[in-house]
Amino acid sequence: MKTHKKELWFDIPTRRAFINITPDVEDCLRKSGIKEGLLLCNAMHITASVFINDDETGLHHDYEVWLEKLAPHEPVSNYRHNVGEDNADAHMKRQIMGREVVVAITDGQLDFGTWEQIFYGEFDGRRKKRVLVKIIGE
Amino acid sequence: MKTHKKELWFDIPTRRAFINITPDVEDCLRKSGIKEGLLLCNAMHITASVFINDDETGLHHDYEVWLEKLAPHEPVSNYRHNVGEDNADAHMKRQIMGREVVVAITDGQLDFGTWEQIFYGEFDGRRKKRVLVKIIGE
Amino acid sequence: MKTHKKELWFDIPTRRAFINITPDVEDCLRKSGIKEGLLLCNAMHITASVFINDDETGLHHDYEVWLEKLAPHEPVSNYRHNVGEDNADAHMKRQIMGREVVVAITDGQLDFGTWEQIFYGEFDGRRKKRVLVKIIGE
Repeated sequence: MKTHKKELWFDIPTRRAFINITPDVEDCLRKSGIKEGLLLCNAMHITASVFINDDETGLHHDYEVWLEKLAPHEPVSNYRHNVGEDNADAHMKRQIMGREVVVAITDGQLDFGTWEQIFYGEFDGRRKKRVLVKIIGE
Repeated sequence: MKTHKKELWFDIPTRRAFINITPDVEDCLRKSGIKEGLLLCNAMHITASVFINDDETGLHHDYEVWLEKLAPHEPVSNYRHNVGEDNADAHMKRQIMGREVVVAITDGQLDFGTWEQIFYGEFDGRRKKRVLVKIIGE
Repeated sequence: MKTHKKELWFDIPTRRAFINITPDVEDCLRKSGIKEGLLLCNAMHITASVFINDDETGLHHDYEVWLEKLAPHEPVSNYRHNVGEDNADAHMKRQIMGREVVVAITDGQLDFGTWEQIFYGEFDGRRKKRVLVKIIGE
């Protein structure tokens, strides 16, 4: 059994953003030399997500509006977590979008459907944050 | 280490449905011969889910009503993604229900609690779509 | 390849609670002797969650309020699942918070960001329930 690990770093200049990290994850997989196995990709921060969906800007706009409706940023004082912080909503948005994805590796490739792409979802940016890629297999 | 892969195909005649795929997944596991390890089961489409919950029709009705309230299909024009499409809500519903499950394999069985069953959640059906099962272990 | 399995038991005296189980999961990892691999931790019940977020009581209060707004317990009769039961809302809350987490193991440790902690989320307690920890690696 082989394992391979890589951390991806982000410093998003806005509070919220969706970044397609599929090429970075594919690069990790290539470097690992692993042909068959499982790949875990997770946010290492609790106000960010890693998720799989469509690389379509209209949809990303819709996600932004929808998440803001389900877990509004304002009024900041509505959340008890917001004592010296203003990111309680980011902890909620991240639960809906998820912390992690697990992807099958087959013949040295991410075993994906046609439109599957991996995204980093930032909900409390403007500082350096990390994503972990861990691969196990042969 | 052994790996095994199978794609399950669906062609749901309605827009939305929940299908119990536990017997299909158990069949994959049996064919793999793997006794100890991890099993990944994920939707290969971004408007569908794989999730674990109860096989109870009342609950499935409640999920349908609840998801429609959190991410309504109508009005279709409320979503920017819906240019030549009408499935933006399906991309949201899938995020709440999840893309994938990872299940422990112990003694050649899915290591499940009493009521755990695996479902395919279709939110934009009426066409052929796939689920991936990938198993690693020994 | 090595595998290790442990069940953690809970008997939460209230309907809902969030319990930090990170020390229990770390104890399983130590006992497994596994240094590199993946760890799955999942609720074995369909009205409970395992998730990763912050160990901060203000945030846990905010989650409780937020989940109750998205999937209210009352009126119990609003859910078809509630025939001889009153836990339909718990099945919804669990989908938002998630069934499971998969964690990378590196150098014999949970490969975590600074604030990541694993929680058992109970949404229908007052009875004995289980969490599964399954570890594979070397």
